[in-house]
Amino acid sequence: MTHGIKIATIGGGSSYTPELIEGFIKRYDELPVSEIWLVDIEAGKEKLEIVGALAKRMIAKADLPINVILTLDRRAALKDADFVTTQFRVGQLDARAKDERIPLNYQTIGQETNGPGGLFKGLRTIPVILAICEEMLELCPEAWLVNFTNPAGMVTEAVLRYSKLKKVVGLCNGPIGIEKGIADVLEVAQERLYVEFTGLNHMVFAKGIYLDGQDVTEQVMNLMTTDAGKTVSLKNIEELGWQPEFLKKLGMVPIGYLRYYYQTSLMLAEQQLAAKTEGTRAEVVKRVEHELFELYKDEQLDTKPPQLEQRGGAYYSEAACNLICSIYTDKRDIQTVNTRNNGAIADIDPDSAVEVNCVITKQGPIPLVTGPLPVPIKGLVQQIKSFERTAAEAAVTGDYQTALLAMTINPLVPSDSDAKAMLDDLLQAHGEYLPQFNQ
Amino acid sequence: MTHGIKIATIGGGSSYTPELIEGFIKRYDELPVSEIWLVDIEAGKEKLEIVGALAKRMIAKADLPINVILTLDRRAALKDADFVTTQFRVGQLDARAKDERIPLNYQTIGQETNGPGGLFKGLRTIPVILAICEEMLELCPEAWLVNFTNPAGMVTEAVLRYSKLKKVVGLCNGPIGIEKGIADVLEVAQERLYVEFTGLNHMVFAKGIYLDGQDVTEQVMNLMTTDAGKTVSLKNIEELGWQPEFLKKLGMVPIGYLRYYYQTSLMLAEQQLAAKTEGTRAEVVKRVEHELFELYKDEQLDTKPPQLEQRGGAYYSEAACNLICSIYTDKRDIQTVNTRNNGAIADIDPDSAVEVNCVITKQGPIPLVTGPLPVPIKGLVQQIKSFERTAAEAAVTGDYQTALLAMTINPLVPSDSDAKAMLDDLLQAHGEYLPQFNQ
Amino acid sequence: MTHGIKIATIGGGSSYTPELIEGFIKRYDELPVSEIWLVDIEAGKEKLEIVGALAKRMIAKADLPINVILTLDRRAALKDADFVTTQFRVGQLDARAKDERIPLNYQTIGQETNGPGGLFKGLRTIPVILAICEEMLELCPEAWLVNFTNPAGMVTEAVLRYSKLKKVVGLCNGPIGIEKGIADVLEVAQERLYVEFTGLNHMVFAKGIYLDGQDVTEQVMNLMTTDAGKTVSLKNIEELGWQPEFLKKLGMVPIGYLRYYYQTSLMLAEQQLAAKTEGTRAEVVKRVEHELFELYKDEQLDTKPPQLEQRGGAYYSEAACNLICSIYTDKRDIQTVNTRNNGAIADIDPDSAVEVNCVITKQGPIPLVTGPLPVPIKGLVQQIKSFERTAAEAAVTGDYQTALLAMTINPLVPSDSDAKAMLDDLLQAHGEYLPQFNQ
Amino acid sequence: MTHGIKIATIGGGSSYTPELIEGFIKRYDELPVSEIWLVDIEAGKEKLEIVGALAKRMIAKADLPINVILTLDRRAALKDADFVTTQFRVGQLDARAKDERIPLNYQTIGQETNGPGGLFKGLRTIPVILAICEEMLELCPEAWLVNFTNPAGMVTEAVLRYSKLKKVVGLCNGPIGIEKGIADVLEVAQERLYVEFTGLNHMVFAKGIYLDGQDVTEQVMNLMTTDAGKTVSLKNIEELGWQPEFLKKLGMVPIGYLRYYYQTSLMLAEQQLAAKTEGTRAEVVKRVEHELFELYKDEQLDTKPPQLEQRGGAYYSEAACNLICSIYTDKRDIQTVNTRNNGAIADIDPDSAVEVNCVITKQGPIPLVTGPLPVPIKGLVQQIKSFERTAAEAAVTGDYQTALLAMTINPLVPSDSDAKAMLDDLLQAHGEYLPQFNQ
Repeated sequence: MTHGIKIATIGGGSSYTPELIEGFIKRYDELPVSEIWLVDIEAGKEKLEIVGALAKRMIAKADLPINVILTLDRRAALKDADFVTTQFRVGQLDARAKDERIPLNYQTIGQETNGPGGLFKGLRTIPVILAICEEMLELCPEAWLVNFTNPAGMVTEAVLRYSKLKKVVGLCNGPIGIEKGIADVLEVAQERLYVEFTGLNHMVFAKGIYLDGQDVTEQVMNLMTTDAGKTVSLKNIEELGWQPEFLKKLGMVPIGYLRYYYQTSLMLAEQQLAAKTEGTRAEVVKRVEHELFELYKDEQLDTKPPQLEQRGGAYYSEAACNLICSIYTDKRDIQTVNTRNNGAIADIDPDSAVEVNCVITKQGPIPLVTGPLPVPIKGLVQQIKSFERTAAEAAVTGDYQTALLAMTINPLVPSDSDAKAMLDDLLQAHGEYLPQFNQ
Repeated sequence: MTHGIKIATIGGGSSYTPELIEGFIKRYDELPVSEIWLVDIEAGKEKLEIVGALAKRMIAKADLPINVILTLDRRAALKDADFVTTQFRVGQLDARAKDERIPLNYQTIGQETNGPGGLFKGLRTIPVILAICEEMLELCPEAWLVNFTNPAGMVTEAVLRYSKLKKVVGLCNGPIGIEKGIADVLEVAQERLYVEFTGLNHMVFAKGIYLDGQDVTEQVMNLMTTDAGKTVSLKNIEELGWQPEFLKKLGMVPIGYLRYYYQTSLMLAEQQLAAKTEGTRAEVVKRVEHELFELYKDEQLDTKPPQLEQRGGAYYSEAACNLICSIYTDKRDIQTVNTRNNGAIADIDPDSAVEVNCVITKQGPIPLVTGPLPVPIKGLVQQIKSFERTAAEAAVTGDYQTALLAMTINPLVPSDSDAKAMLDDLLQAHGEYLPQFNQ
Repeated sequence: MTHGIKIATIGGGSSYTPELIEGFIKRYDELPVSEIWLVDIEAGKEKLEIVGALAKRMIAKADLPINVILTLDRRAALKDADFVTTQFRVGQLDARAKDERIPLNYQTIGQETNGPGGLFKGLRTIPVILAICEEMLELCPEAWLVNFTNPAGMVTEAVLRYSKLKKVVGLCNGPIGIEKGIADVLEVAQERLYVEFTGLNHMVFAKGIYLDGQDVTEQVMNLMTTDAGKTVSLKNIEELGWQPEFLKKLGMVPIGYLRYYYQTSLMLAEQQLAAKTEGTRAEVVKRVEHELFELYKDEQLDTKPPQLEQRGGAYYSEAACNLICSIYTDKRDIQTVNTRNNGAIADIDPDSAVEVNCVITKQGPIPLVTGPLPVPIKGLVQQIKSFERTAAEAAVTGDYQTALLAMTINPLVPSDSDAKAMLDDLLQAHGEYLPQFNQ
Repeated sequence: MTHGIKIATIGGGSSYTPELIEGFIKRYDELPVSEIWLVDIEAGKEKLEIVGALAKRMIAKADLPINVILTLDRRAALKDADFVTTQFRVGQLDARAKDERIPLNYQTIGQETNGPGGLFKGLRTIPVILAICEEMLELCPEAWLVNFTNPAGMVTEAVLRYSKLKKVVGLCNGPIGIEKGIADVLEVAQERLYVEFTGLNHMVFAKGIYLDGQDVTEQVMNLMTTDAGKTVSLKNIEELGWQPEFLKKLGMVPIGYLRYYYQTSLMLAEQQLAAKTEGTRAEVVKRVEHELFELYKDEQLDTKPPQLEQRGGAYYSEAACNLICSIYTDKRDIQTVNTRNNGAIADIDPDSAVEVNCVITKQGPIPLVTGPLPVPIKGLVQQIKSFERTAAEAAVTGDYQTALLAMTINPLVPSDSDAKAMLDDLLQAHGEYLPQFNQ
């Protein structure tokens, strides 16, 4: 890497790109990026040009020798890249809106990662990711694939099982958010905490919390369940509050997405209401994105606008740039990422993707052991893992029965007949993005 | 056991008793029972006397030297027993009706074994079972506890984890029923089949089916999903039919109870309708039982009346008497029972109860290995196991938070707030039978 | 199999053949064999004719419609066979004598199964077995391979890992011998016993002993360590006696072969002495076999001569014919065989061969769970398994380094330099039988 | 710990103490030690005073406010300690000499850690360590026990299984030595390396070697087996050289102690020769120590004399002080220590001690997953673990049979009868230090 670091960002026209650019600018001293290739497809060209121009202004302002290249030629971008990041969205937000709305017709939460909507996002995304892996093995075999694209757990699972590419990490800003939230609850600096995570992407739990080496897990659970109601949450999940006695006995801080599973009926009601009022999450985001791009067009703008954080991507840059930086500098710090289990969680298949604390070395993340899943969550976590594995298989094979099996075993889906109906509707709606099912 | 075999049946006043008596009569040549003690509590005295009189008439007709003793003195019944069978129901069918009706108020299936209703059945039953275990260790330490009382999986789990009694087996007529159903589907004699079961009580799957040593699993799946619609079912679960493509890819025959999980919305609608028309299952059974006891009163009756089979207990006698007979005679045949896992299912805790094929020897059941759970069912089975373990802990500790945790993680329960509301209602409704929660 | 059962016996010229013939004669009523093909190679033709003639006389005397065919054409023998048994010896007893004598030059026990000698027996045998598997997949894909050929554990491991043939069982008369020995020690009928075995071929332990359902393991250990010195042993292992306090705490009955590992120095001294006096085991056996074949030549002889039992093959017929009979009749009795672990022994790879109790069904053996290896034997058993796996790999690849690794990690081998010297000597001595190392 | 750090060093009169003192002096800026209590027993008083005086001179020279207290009162030393280090030797070097010489009478290597000598060192040491743990739970329950005392693996195993103290780490300078050796072989700075260790104390392997993130394991194996013969070794193990083909296929760098197992006959010959010439290792060390203490007496000496490094303790200070420093400062760097496995090595009991890479946090070491043991070493590592567990049990129970079992299953011991003879001789020789066996 003596040539300076080359980054290729697939889905470079995303509204998140300024986050990423800011991250690279901040870390330039230890992470001397020389080239950032922002790649997108024809349909995303306009956005790519807008956000690309902003990226260039940001770098110009920082006065750094980083070259930003905008391209529709993925192979050129991948050629000799050191790190490939993915933040693309097959079918864009309109597809996500369908993933959310169609299940609502069946009194079912869509949920774009671990729900029926996530199944379809996976079916659209995984073939593209696997194609990128193939190209990477040819064009930049030493590069790391840093995947942000949701469903990040299912995508990482698919790469681990169906690609020869070994250098893959799946990323989520969830664990960082939980850790920051816990620091807020305790009113301490985050640096004094050690938080042990276990689980899967969007199905992760803070199972042990240490402040200056002391186990304060119970104290945090107590603080989270007082009347004052300090809760740890992600901005893009509604704060509904947990039943205090439930949370105390659970003894772990669940990521906000767990509300889909432990508060299914409430979340469904919320989403049904939203669909009738401000729109589904995709529709809201679409408006936010539109506003963001309007801001981005401003040729005076040369920094990341604060409105971006409300988009839900807080800490995304932190997660991605920290990871890349730690790999590049062999920093050996601890980050929570999606990687091959290898026994870190004792009762999950060693070859599966899990979201756990890892030491980030130059040869990649090495998971820290976290033992067996606690009894109360053993089943639900395994259920999502079963779903991810079956969904990944369906994405690769294009087999209808496998897709139906994945849909039916998803814990949000009310019955096999609803599963079939939703599957058929969604296959119909997304046909153009699912060539493997049309053969 | 040179003295002839002594059986103690706890809950001897059950309408199932004639099944059991018939089973002992049929097997007398290899299983020379000399005493059957039918034990019940004061509230069940009348039923005990009715069914006990029938039992005596049945034995008199068979002209066998079996002594039937009716008693309310459990300790006398247990003293020097060789086998203890349990078929009691704490709070009787009225309690079960509450387990079924209260959850319906929250759009939730009650389900008396692995659902919220099952949690309460377990909370009422487990302390009684553990007390029986204590008495057995004192009064008949060499005896086997053959448990029919539901939730049989949770009860067996509780005995394995919280009692010193090692000689316990949990029984269900489900696997026998599936095997007979498969024989019907294939139109072959049951003896030519070998069916490999894996899972938990009421959460069990026929994962491999062999006819004369040939694997015919796929053939059975095909037959089950033709238009002709051959399905394998238990009489007391409505036949709703599976989505054929789902079942084919699943590749296993699920016990009918799986409909609660894979067809939740349909089953809920059915149960809501029933509650408004013929009543919940408990209420229907109560009427059936009333009719049965009217029949039993007939002093001319000296055989098991055919109406009993419609009660849902088909094969119960077969399951229990076969087990006792195989232990007594060291028969070493294969039966599907609930016992300590010890690695038979690779991804379930070795100390947990599982429902798998076992060789039945004089020293008890020895499980046959069945490998890891197939991917699609790994999560759901683990989830019910998590539920059983947490519920058993709640039953023993009487801890409110633990009960709430068990309720919330149950896959049929829609949210933690519904869980809390149902828990509170059910605790209120069953207060007299839950002393451990009233301290 | 309506055509009557066809048996193909590879190495049919073995002195053991009359055992096998007697076994089939005894079981004819339930196991109606119609053809026994005795196959051998050119070098074994004379023996084949002698023992084949005896076999024909035995069957004629029994007046059974079993056709015995002698042939050098292996493919003809395999064609449409129902069971294939193997009892051949690549390089015959002269090769075994080298396996025993060469290691003695390095103060090392040769040991033809799990020692350095066993490595070479495996290197010579495994390629032949794998070739037979290939032919079976082509000529009799439904047939079972019943392998007697030593080292039976390593051979079964090799078939499981390197062949597509699934229907393979490895057999040894050791467990039957231990069980009979225990019955003798207890002075009870063998039928009243249940003996739980765990381990590998020639590395197996009776870890639980039950008499009429009662655990009598400790009682057996006490009886085995009294002054009277009742010990359980195989005829072809010298009875050296165990240190009583060691055996009591071990709490299991080890197969006699364990003396090689727990009494290495004594066994070595014995073998060094024997090599100078009556010869190594191979040399003794060679004389015994010569005498047997002289007996076999007697045209008046039409039964298995009693001298054969002294050869060491007691119960061989029982082991093999019982297994074949139980598969054929779907008897579902319990036998101790070498088969795929699948979790029966918790801490051995599921894909490895183990020697455990199995139910023998028409679809093959299903292992009974036996939990983790007891702590004291966990290491040694794993060490032999590591040896078997590495040796099997060496046999298949013909890789010198792999063979040296297998030799060095064998617990009988004193050092890596001795390992190399022995390896070189043995490769030299057996060159003609090791084509895979000569490329 | 606002009071400044209090260190209690049990066996403070050891010749290693200047290493430790130097380590604390060097790290004072980040590890502000305020008190070092050097504890010893009456028999070690003279040495304690000599080395204690040197320690005080060293600190005086460094001009640091560290108070060195010499004491025979262990409880006073432990009171409110932050870290307790152990470097004592029950029975001193004379006892070790017996551990080495008595086995030689039976043609057996004594080996003071994982051999028969190690068994006795464990039997003498473990009761003392467990007593220290008890006192720590009373007097300094928040303190960490940093154990150097050999056999460090067996001692850590004993604390994990038989004490309530959770804060224990076992230390060895071996892995650091291997890593430095590998850096030498590659001629690179150690900082550029990442070395993945797996195994147990003195039974550890460098299974993966990364230089700047690239896997260079094979390259290292090649360099180690060239004619130039670069080998990685510890100073106190004779360099005998490995068979190159063996080492290449093994594919890991074994700690020098592995020569006891892979080169047993050579090591035995070396030790027998040494016993007749310069004496056993204990006897040589005794002379070296005598010379060291002569040096230490010199009142002009105020630094660690260079001769100490030849004693074999190179990197001891580094290992201990680095560990203490990383715990104190929550450094989260990676060190190789003995700690509870918890699944880091998939096929070793989660509750056992293993020697693996850990992140060192303020709440202690967290192991990094390293997957299953590679096949060739699976057996030997498990065998030593079986030995450690059985030996620890014998140390705690004082049971003769258990001690004999431990001795017999040790891979260096030639037979059960030799085991018994050695056991009896060693029990006789060490009677005064083994009160648990004299009851």
